[in-house]
Formats: sequence, C-alpha cells, structure tokens
Amino acid sequence: MSFTFNTIGLVIRNDIESYVDSVWQVADMLAQRAHVLVHCLDFDQPAAEVDETSMSTLVDEADLVITLGGDGTLLSAARMLVDKNTPLLGINFGRLGFLADVSFEEFENYIKQVLDGHYSTESRFFVEGEFYEDDELISSGIALNDIFLHSHQSFKMIEYEVYSGGQLIHQQRSDGVIVTTPTGSTAYALSGGGPIMHPSLETLAIVPICPHTLSNRPIVLPADQPIEFKLTDETATAGVSYDGQNTLSMDGHNKMRVTRYPKPLTLLHPEDYDYFEILRKKLYWSTNY
Amino acid sequence: MSFTFNTIGLVIRNDIESYVDSVWQVADMLAQRAHVLVHCLDFDQPAAEVDETSMSTLVDEADLVITLGGDGTLLSAARMLVDKNTPLLGINFGRLGFLADVSFEEFENYIKQVLDGHYSTESRFFVEGEFYEDDELISSGIALNDIFLHSHQSFKMIEYEVYSGGQLIHQQRSDGVIVTTPTGSTAYALSGGGPIMHPSLETLAIVPICPHTLSNRPIVLPADQPIEFKLTDETATAGVSYDGQNTLSMDGHNKMRVTRYPKPLTLLHPEDYDYFEILRKKLYWSTNY
Amino acid sequence: MSFTFNTIGLVIRNDIESYVDSVWQVADMLAQRAHVLVHCLDFDQPAAEVDETSMSTLVDEADLVITLGGDGTLLSAARMLVDKNTPLLGINFGRLGFLADVSFEEFENYIKQVLDGHYSTESRFFVEGEFYEDDELISSGIALNDIFLHSHQSFKMIEYEVYSGGQLIHQQRSDGVIVTTPTGSTAYALSGGGPIMHPSLETLAIVPICPHTLSNRPIVLPADQPIEFKLTDETATAGVSYDGQNTLSMDGHNKMRVTRYPKPLTLLHPEDYDYFEILRKKLYWSTNY
Amino acid sequence: MSFTFNTIGLVIRNDIESYVDSVWQVADMLAQRAHVLVHCLDFDQPAAEVDETSMSTLVDEADLVITLGGDGTLLSAARMLVDKNTPLLGINFGRLGFLADVSFEEFENYIKQVLDGHYSTESRFFVEGEFYEDDELISSGIALNDIFLHSHQSFKMIEYEVYSGGQLIHQQRSDGVIVTTPTGSTAYALSGGGPIMHPSLETLAIVPICPHTLSNRPIVLPADQPIEFKLTDETATAGVSYDGQNTLSMDGHNKMRVTRYPKPLTLLHPEDYDYFEILRKKLYWSTNY
Repeated sequence: MSFTFNTIGLVIRNDIESYVDSVWQVADMLAQRAHVLVHCLDFDQPAAEVDETSMSTLVDEADLVITLGGDGTLLSAARMLVDKNTPLLGINFGRLGFLADVSFEEFENYIKQVLDGHYSTESRFFVEGEFYEDDELISSGIALNDIFLHSHQSFKMIEYEVYSGGQLIHQQRSDGVIVTTPTGSTAYALSGGGPIMHPSLETLAIVPICPHTLSNRPIVLPADQPIEFKLTDETATAGVSYDGQNTLSMDGHNKMRVTRYPKPLTLLHPEDYDYFEILRKKLYWSTNY
Repeated sequence: MSFTFNTIGLVIRNDIESYVDSVWQVADMLAQRAHVLVHCLDFDQPAAEVDETSMSTLVDEADLVITLGGDGTLLSAARMLVDKNTPLLGINFGRLGFLADVSFEEFENYIKQVLDGHYSTESRFFVEGEFYEDDELISSGIALNDIFLHSHQSFKMIEYEVYSGGQLIHQQRSDGVIVTTPTGSTAYALSGGGPIMHPSLETLAIVPICPHTLSNRPIVLPADQPIEFKLTDETATAGVSYDGQNTLSMDGHNKMRVTRYPKPLTLLHPEDYDYFEILRKKLYWSTNY
Repeated sequence: MSFTFNTIGLVIRNDIESYVDSVWQVADMLAQRAHVLVHCLDFDQPAAEVDETSMSTLVDEADLVITLGGDGTLLSAARMLVDKNTPLLGINFGRLGFLADVSFEEFENYIKQVLDGHYSTESRFFVEGEFYEDDELISSGIALNDIFLHSHQSFKMIEYEVYSGGQLIHQQRSDGVIVTTPTGSTAYALSGGGPIMHPSLETLAIVPICPHTLSNRPIVLPADQPIEFKLTDETATAGVSYDGQNTLSMDGHNKMRVTRYPKPLTLLHPEDYDYFEILRKKLYWSTNY
Repeated sequence: MSFTFNTIGLVIRNDIESYVDSVWQVADMLAQRAHVLVHCLDFDQPAAEVDETSMSTLVDEADLVITLGGDGTLLSAARMLVDKNTPLLGINFGRLGFLADVSFEEFENYIKQVLDGHYSTESRFFVEGEFYEDDELISSGIALNDIFLHSHQSFKMIEYEVYSGGQLIHQQRSDGVIVTTPTGSTAYALSGGGPIMHPSLETLAIVPICPHTLSNRPIVLPADQPIEFKLTDETATAGVSYDGQNTLSMDGHNKMRVTRYPKPLTLLHPEDYDYFEILRKKLYWSTNY
C-alpha cells in the first residue's frame, strides 16, 4: 500500500497543555510538507493557542491522521475515522504504547521517512455493538479494543446468556464480560486474564471478569460469527462500554449483537515495526525475577 | 460431504477387557451393514477373542474408522489415519469426551443414522513437529491436541527462544511450554491456563507451564506461520511429547519447528452435534457455586 | 462451649414469600422448645403474616439466632450481632452455603440435636473498615467476608497505595481491591483469583481485581496488622463495600484502615461438620473433566 | 536477639570460579574480625585455591554463616544448619534475591555493621517431609521453600489424596502439587499460581500444578496441622523434591507427611530490611504497562 499525504490531520488532547510547545514543533515540521489541520479532543473549548479544525472537517479532508498522546488518544481518533479508513499513526509523548508507537524523541526523523513513503501498513479491525429491542436496532457503537458489558452499579453481578453464530455458549454470572479484538487483547482484557491474540487474527475473545463459575475460561471465537448477549433477567439493566470510554445502557429485554465491523483501520508503523518487540518491552518479558 | 461406508475399521484398546461383550455388540451391529476390521491398540498380543487386523491394513482398507474408548483412543487412531483422511468417529464407554462424543448407550440408533448418511462432518487440523540439526530434518511427529516441550527431568526449568513466522517472540524460562491446536485447547493446555479456542479457528496457542516471568501469558497465533523453538543453552536437552503420548529428545543445537499439517482430520458427529453443549457439560458450566 | 437456648431469634428475608409455610414450620418447631422472635430483613413492611420483632430487640433478647435463607441472609444477621456474639446458625432453603449449612430438609432432626446441646462451635472473625480524615475517624463498617475498594463508576480504574503494619506494600492500579477474611476467601475473592484460606487462620488476603501490573498477585497477611489504603490522587473518590452490601464513599484525602474486629462470631454447626467436605461439594472437586 | 561472632563460616559455590577474587575479598575482610572457615558446596574437589573446611566442621564451629551466591546457595546452607539455628545471611553476586539480600557492592560496609551488632533478625520455618510405610518412617527430608510431589516421568499426571490435620481435603489429579512455606511462596509456587504469604505467618499453602479439575485453587492452611499425601493408585510411584534440589521416590503404599519443623532458621538482614521493598523490586511492581 502506498499513499501520498497532502493534508495531514493532527489530533491532540486538550489536556496536554504542558506539551503545547511540542505540539507546535510537530505541526511546524508537518507544515513544511503538507497542509495541516489540528483538532483538540475532549473539550468544546480548545486550548487557547490552537487554531482548531472540527473533527468532521479533519476526517473529510485529511489523507493522513497523526495523533499526539497515548493509545487512548489514538483509539478516540480511530473510532472517528472508522468509515474513511484514513491511515493513522500515533506519536507518543510518554512511554511507547501498543498502538501509538513513535516516540516524540524520534518523531522528526521518522515522520520524514513516512512522508517519503517509507513505512509499513497494518490492518486492524473494529467491532460494532448493536442493541436490538424486538429485532429493531435501537443504538450502536464502535470499538477498536473491546466492548464491555457490566453492571450499572460497581461490581454487582450480572447474569447473561452468550451466543456465537446463533448457538448458546453458556449462561453465566460474573461482574462483567469483555469482547475483545486482537488489538484489545493487550489492553483491558489482559488484566482480566484473557490471552494475547496476534493482530493478524480474525478472532474475538470473550473474557469474563470474576466469573461465578470457577471453571469458566476465556474463549477465542471466529470474528465472522456474531456474538450475542442477553440478560437472563428481563427486569435487569446493564452498562455497555466501548473502548472503556462511552457507556450505553442495556435493558433486560434488549439483545446486544457484536460483529466485526466491515471497514478496517489502517495503521502506519515505522518500517522496522516488530509487534513482538513491543510486547516484550511493554510486558517486561526480558526481565528475570 | 457424504461418504459410503463399505469397510469399517473398529479400533479398540486392549486393556478394555471388561468391555469385550460391548465390543462384540458394536462389531456385530456394524457387520450387518459393512465389512468390519478390528484392531487393538497398545499391545502386540491382542485380547484373546479378537480376530485382529493390523493397523496398516485397517488404515488401507477402511472407509470409516470407529474408536471404542475415550478421547485418548480416538487421538491414537487419528494420528495413524493422518495421511488418509478416513472419517473418524468415537463411541465412548464412559463419560462423553470432547472428541469421542457418542455414548455407548445410544450407539445403535446413532450408528444406524450414520450408515444411512445422517451425520455432520467437521474438519480438524494436526500439527507437525520437526527437529532440525543444522537445517537437516532429523525427526518429526504429529499431534492432534498438542506438542509439549519440557525438561527431561521432572520439573526442571528449561530456557528457550520462541519464534513465530521467523520473528522472535521472546526468550523464556518455564517448566515447559505447550503448542496447542484448537482441538487441544480443551485438553492439557486448559489445565495450564490456556484459552479455549473454537475448533473452526486456524490458530495455535503457546501456553507456558509455570513461567518464571510473571507477566508471561498464553499467546494465540496464526496456524499458517511456523512456530520455532530453540534451547538457549546449547548443552541442554529437553523432551518433546506429542499428544502426551510419545516423547522424543531435543538437543541444545536442534531447532524444533511446529507447522500446521497439510492434511486434515475429518470427524463425524451426530447430526445434532453442538460444540458448546459439550463444553458446558464437560466443564460443568451450568453449575452454580 | 455450651449454651442453653431460651429465646431464639429467627431472621428471615422478606422476599421469601414463597417459603412462608416453611418459615412457620420452623417457627412452630422452635416454639415447642423456646420463646421465638422473628425478624424480616430488608424491608420496613414485613410480609403480611409475620408478627415481627425489631432487630434490636431480637439482638438484645435472643441467645441463639437462626437464619432462614442463604449465606447472604446469615451475613446480614452476623453483622448485626457483632457486639453480642450470640451463636448463629443458618438453615438453607436452597443449595447448602459455605455458612448456612443446614438444609431445610433435615432441619427438624438437626435443630432438635442443637437444642439438646449436640453441635460444634466455630469462631470466625470480622474485619472493620474505618475512614480517617486527618486522623479523625469519620465512618466505619463491619464485614464478615470482605471489604472491597472500587471505583464509584463501573470498572473505572483506581490507583491506591496499600500498607500493612505501617509499611508500604505497593502502589497499584486496578479495577478494585478486596480485603478478605478466611471466611470470605470462598466468596467473592475466589472469583477474583484469591486463594482459599482455612477458617482457623488469623490472616487477611489482599486480592486485586484486574490489576494493571501483570505481576501483581494475591498476598496473605497477618490479621493482627492493620491494612491501610490511600488513593494516590487526592481529588479522586472511590466506593467501599462491606460484604458486597453497603457502600460508602471514600475521598482522596481519606485513609481507610482495615483491622481485625476484636469480638468474634460464633457459628454453630452440625456435630459432623466438615469444612473440607463443604469445599468439595460447593466447588465440585469430585467431578472429573 | 544479639550475637557475638567469633567464628564465621563462609559457604560458596564451587562453580563461581570467576568470582574467586571476590570470595577472597570477603574472606579477607571477615578475617580481620573473626576466625573464618570456608566451605565449597556441590563438589568433592574444591576450587584450587580454597583451603576448605568440611561442612560438618563449619556447622559445628561457626556462630555466623555467610553465603556467597544467590537464594539457591543460601537454601542449601540453610538446610545443613537446620538443627543448629546458626544465624545466616547471604551476599549476592548478582541481582538481589528474596533471601540473599546483601549486594556484593555494599557488603563491606554492611558486614562491618553486622559484626558491630547492627542488623535485624528474622525467624523463618522449615518443613519436614516424612515417608511412612505401614506407619513406619522410611525416609525424610527438610525444605525451607517447598516440598514438591510430582510424577517421576516428566509431566505425567499423578492422582493423590491430600489431608490436613487428618481430614481429607480432596482427591485430585494434576501434574504435581507443591506444599510451600511463606518463604517459598515467592519462589516456585508463585510461578504455579500460588499466593504470596507474609514470612511472619505460620501457614502452608497447597498449590497444584495443572490440576485436572478446573475449580481447584491454592489453599492456605495452618502450619501446625500435618498435611498428608497418599497416591490413589497403590501401584503408582511419584517423585518428591525438597527445595527443588533433592528428589526421593514415593510408592503407592507410602504416605507422605509434611509438618512444620520444630527448629527455626534465623536470617540476618540489614537494619533497614523491608520485605515489601524486596517484593516490589523483584516483581517489578513499580512498572507501568
């Protein structure tokens, strides 16, 4: 895959005021090579000095989006780019992320290489969660990492049935249950005891949090089969979070259907990108106890 | 897929003498519909009353193989059928297995249905483990469930490097490490903390046993990429077991390469076969603590 | 230990209306041997037919308390008896609990034996959680099973420091953290990955839920050393639940101090009570996968 | 506790030839303050330059034993000192251990302090494993960390019954089972999924390795109750390892009885010793994923 980047969208978090000089440093460097649009996430009122573009304009016009922040910033931008498949890359001010894997220290050299066409591309997939009431779609949401079904109250148990491809997997009681993509398998689901799934896989994993039945285990399923959840008690309600950020409410008479979203996300990486090296660094696998 | 079954191979374990009447009951029933060949596993000297066929003859001539026993009996037969892809089904004398899923109590009715063409078929894949010394293949083995690398001495730690598709995953110290297929994910790897993988997936999981680095986790990888192991210490040796049954020795200057075996296994199941129902029953998921 | 039981308090849940005949059956049987006081948990308005006593009167006057329900009913009663140390036993309408271990089917025979002095006694301990603001005690609560610190919002991470005996254990980020007694070690903490602790032990375990640091593990500590929690972020808040039932709010400038409560709980059991037998039954340890 | 150290035993590993200069550096420094005896572990033939004392002489005469090496060296020395309770401390050439907690870099300053009486002391306990045949003791062994029952063949399952205080806990099938002291809870048992137990506790934990029953969990038990193991199959055999180093054979008609050994081990630590700080460092608890 090869792209030419005439307009670059720069997505920053409004709360990184202390980094504002660094933001300008990146923006100035990009402006030498392309038209640059800047958007601040999270707040209506952008940081004072920023000449901001709306996210919708940025999404429409940018042919490359660069996020400045961590994995959370990249996740937010990714969900907004979902139907455009604009290539995305993340510059990280702190410790490298699983997704935002260019350090601020080396952005200059690296970004030059990208604009010159030297990068690797990788396709990741989103999941979509749809709520149905009597087979009518009432709401939906998108996640790159995970969709998380849980009690509205902190840590009250929920009881639900899970289906894959229309077949009942089981009825289960737990504090919550995660459906994770391979991308999300190194995020929240990993803390919950889920396996790491290589990002090239077309799989989803179901990871229960504090399951009541001690023989419950994470299950890896084909991503091309819908996974469905129903609360066992019709009078119950539950919350559903997308990438841990947006929470919707699910009623006992709803059904939630999770499917692989048809349009992919394209991540750009340095040419020497090595997924396993990131795993080793992030999870301290080279350390000896 | 549809088959006609003219010659049926019956594979039994020699140590199930107490079931010998049941064996004849199955053999007699089958003989009304097809030519029947019987082979006893495990022992040179077959059980007295059995007019036995060699396994190689049975493999050559049978167009359906039925095992009488548990999952272990079916695993043994499966490995011997590996290059023929003769359909296989298992009748279970005890509690239903993950693989041998027809109970002796209902075999008669069920076998009739199968011989009449009423069954479902399912494709599972084997893995092959090959040992190389200076890029020369020196031995190999086949497994339907798992290949297990471990110390020759009980529970001495081994130290090794793991690669997927030629890329280093990590260097790790543990008591042992399992490469499991989806079929094996409900067997030994599950006791070792691995995830359940749906049998339709083309994945392998690496599951370390008692890893020294506490942040190590099971990893799910694409089955079309070879997984390679090297012992870190060239003077070390290790054992390698195939389906927990045959153990070969690996030297520090060997490399073990695990790949998806090109020829599949065809399992026959009752028409109403439901993988998740077997999971629920075998793992007691309907119980409430 | 031996007791004479002249006044028996019967504690029932108001929502067990369907069991009301059974309640009368127990009450009538007890009334032949002692004065009986009945109290309905949970609701101001008792079930219609019950001639109810207030809990405080029951606590003051009863020299034996019997709960009708499950472990949750016994937990509620236990916390109200905390300063009296009135012996307590639980009759269970459903499947036997870890605490309420007399089945309704055999209550008659068993209660006769108890009133005749044939029973075993066991001492369990409570934990007390106290909130301090600038060393001033601002609230407190009691738990027999566990005290649980967690985000007010479902499954948002909290960051906190834990101390034992005044020494920092570590600073940790997780969805929540349980301090469990041996009694609670077979309840919520077990779902969260904690160890089983024998009820005779004077220990507390700290069990993190979904810890961010993958090398975090449950820690068993001496119960005679206070365990303290502080939120790392002074502007944060968190929730604290006692036995999963009452939730208080903790501010970032509070300190929570968990100590062994000085007064014990006395449980009565059948004479042939066997803790490990209950474990085996409740956790299905006799089953073979 | 306070001691005067006139004779110091120095225990070194024979395979640390590359450290021989460092050994002399320690020995010379000690010789300025006390009589020094040196013993090489592991080999009959000591390293050339060492004027060696037998271990039995060293044990008889030393009133302080210092090990040079890691936790394994200290474990070996500790078992040989078991009936003398000579205080023990470990100087570590590599990364600090859980037990050998003085780094070679700072040994000089620290040892001076110890010889001047500035140190903290800590009591740890051993476990003893005794094999009985028809109630006759046939062999026994001592461990500071753990006693490990396992198959003689690598990773063949064993089936056994476990008792605490004479009561059956359960019958279990697994690859092996660890009985760990609090001291051993940060060693092998931690890799096997066991909890961390504070070293001041009088507890033992039973940690199964790859248990066949998925609801099996580590259990913490009082150390003053004997834990007993019997193989379910009288014709089976198993191996038993003490601190992972010495392996005995157990027959199906034997019983293994594990008890707290009556004589303690006294560890010396720097005055500012902090158990939790060592945990944090060794387990990388300050790292952020």
